[in-house]
Amino acid sequence: MARKRFEDMNCSVAQSLEVLGDWWTLLLVREAFFGTTRFKDFERNLGIAKNILAARLDHLVDRGVFVREPIGEDSKRYEYRLTAMGRDLLTVVTALREWSDRWIYSEGNEPLVLRDTRTGKRPPLLRLRDVDGALLNPRYLALEPGPGADRELLARFRSRDEA
Amino acid sequence: MARKRFEDMNCSVAQSLEVLGDWWTLLLVREAFFGTTRFKDFERNLGIAKNILAARLDHLVDRGVFVREPIGEDSKRYEYRLTAMGRDLLTVVTALREWSDRWIYSEGNEPLVLRDTRTGKRPPLLRLRDVDGALLNPRYLALEPGPGADRELLARFRSRDEA
Repeated sequence: MARKRFEDMNCSVAQSLEVLGDWWTLLLVREAFFGTTRFKDFERNLGIAKNILAARLDHLVDRGVFVREPIGEDSKRYEYRLTAMGRDLLTVVTALREWSDRWIYSEGNEPLVLRDTRTGKRPPLLRLRDVDGALLNPRYLALEPGPGADRELLARFRSRDEA
Repeated sequence: MARKRFEDMNCSVAQSLEVLGDWWTLLLVREAFFGTTRFKDFERNLGIAKNILAARLDHLVDRGVFVREPIGEDSKRYEYRLTAMGRDLLTVVTALREWSDRWIYSEGNEPLVLRDTRTGKRPPLLRLRDVDGALLNPRYLALEPGPGADRELLARFRSRDEA
């Protein structure tokens, strides 16, 4: 069977990976959340090669995750800022950070913590919750074809339900 | 400057990417959430090359995301099942799926939707919320060094605060 490309998959996880391009993307997004906007600062803080960084930033600007804006009127220097689409990756980056804090660093060894600046408290962990805020037990959660499911995905769920 | 390796970074996002290895990992996890357990089913459903799949599954078993168990007593066939660490990636996969549904597919075109089998309802989107369930405005969230921050990370935040 031919190897499927992510972009051919009728799958939101695969599509997001296609736009994100590679793992560096999420570290660039993390850097942007820290306030980094300049090419040389991304380069220094991540220790990423110039050519890789340039290619990743170009890709992310093309796909609408970052915007590139000149600094000052006729400057040749640019800033990279997250768009609304990019800022919305906060949930993804937070989910990854919390998973790693829990399973790799373990509690009490977190390199970074999130703080609510109004209350000084750490906000609750990101969890699937019900409308009343109660934790959802994954045992009661089912994925099913949505309005954008293609024929292949529908067939897959049909055969699964009949099995 | 030498390229940093993810594993050298004092950063939970980088560490999770190091364990996850590459994007295929998250699609293997997604497949496992669909109920896939057998090598040949991962292969068929993802259209992934045998050698890549074998290497990814070996890596994920080594790192504790999947367990490999023989099917039956003296079988040479195996099942791959998510560990608790693996199942806990539900939050990461859900965050990616929801981001893609929102920004790539757009509302009303989602290939898959999550359903609470007890109520028949779709659970609320994964969002950073306060203890009372209210949405947290990212404007009031700050990342700061945690108990596991190393010297480099502490210095970075100090210089930022002084700037």
